[in-house]
Amino acid sequence: MQDIKSENIYQLEKQYRTSLINSLIGYRALNLLGTTSNDGVTNLCIISSVFHLGANPPLIGMVIRPEREHNDTLRNIRSTGQYTLNNVLPEWYMQAHQTSASYPSGFSEFDTCHFKKYYTNGFKAPFVKASNVRIGLELREMIDMEVNGTTIVIGEIVHILTEDGLIGADGTVDHGKAGTMTVAGLDTYYLPQPVGQLAYAKPGVEPHLLNTNTSFNT
Amino acid sequence: MQDIKSENIYQLEKQYRTSLINSLIGYRALNLLGTTSNDGVTNLCIISSVFHLGANPPLIGMVIRPEREHNDTLRNIRSTGQYTLNNVLPEWYMQAHQTSASYPSGFSEFDTCHFKKYYTNGFKAPFVKASNVRIGLELREMIDMEVNGTTIVIGEIVHILTEDGLIGADGTVDHGKAGTMTVAGLDTYYLPQPVGQLAYAKPGVEPHLLNTNTSFNT
Repeated sequence: MQDIKSENIYQLEKQYRTSLINSLIGYRALNLLGTTSNDGVTNLCIISSVFHLGANPPLIGMVIRPEREHNDTLRNIRSTGQYTLNNVLPEWYMQAHQTSASYPSGFSEFDTCHFKKYYTNGFKAPFVKASNVRIGLELREMIDMEVNGTTIVIGEIVHILTEDGLIGADGTVDHGKAGTMTVAGLDTYYLPQPVGQLAYAKPGVEPHLLNTNTSFNT
Repeated sequence: MQDIKSENIYQLEKQYRTSLINSLIGYRALNLLGTTSNDGVTNLCIISSVFHLGANPPLIGMVIRPEREHNDTLRNIRSTGQYTLNNVLPEWYMQAHQTSASYPSGFSEFDTCHFKKYYTNGFKAPFVKASNVRIGLELREMIDMEVNGTTIVIGEIVHILTEDGLIGADGTVDHGKAGTMTVAGLDTYYLPQPVGQLAYAKPGVEPHLLNTNTSFNT
């Protein structure tokens, strides 16, 4: 077994450490984050630090790094109060990865990385047309983290745009059917295969598959 | 296309809405969270709200809900300042799910759900022996979220315990090889298959696979 302690972590070569720390927690929610400036310059970047904060009210959190290219995103969210999260599909995941390149301010990654925008009535931030699970959010809170200069952005879900047939009878989005991808670490992309949907856990009841019609519970 | 707006979200049946909102962001980092009380009563619960906060210093965030059974966890983290995150494997993912049942305070899910503990020198919190990627953390910050009563817990990575051969030459943990699982929503478990490891994105350079020896870049 490898046992890497705190003092060893700090001695690791920088890029090695970054890859290691980024990949430790396992697979991460993978989305394209869409914003627009007040002048109408759109911005798109891939993000894997999105987390579920709560269902009532419907809240999502995400971590934005302090680097320059992300400041466009942060500035846009701050000034317009709106942003979108859009799932990533295998047909164009390389383009999605490309949005992480440091394009100069004023460039739209929608154009540069060949993504068509999709707008819904009364919502300023652009969605990704090629995605099939899209979330529109309104800014609720920003937490500046003194510990490392990142910003935790909390938003409320105000739009859910999915292609037909992706939301199951119980409300769960079928990401297997959608073809949603995930990432481990900074750059390693994966396509998950369904294993099982489990029943709500209760003390004294053995864990078991939920009795549904989904194809993988057979 | 389905377009669910804010006012519709609030009208959805509660359990349907919970499943929908929980599953929107896609696949989530899936871990078992291990703690101990000062009296030595251990606690284990499955958690899917873990996120990467930063690599330098090496920080991980997670959301703890205000419900009773999770207060043991929160109380343990607060009083001992330590906790562990351990990946979930297919052979025993149902047992891992079972740790989400509301066992009375004082019960250890390690015993009830048949998990062996693993300890490393000088660290109080128990690791999961059956996992193969394990993280030991020290509490750095707790943020009480007024918006919904959850707590965002920030910890620094002080131990990394992995089985041999799971950390690649570049530092990335090979979760495909490890067999790490992921979850979408509350209860639907998936096993990801590798698609590609991509090179660092640069403006003007077409996105491409990293030239490595990993089996899936062939």
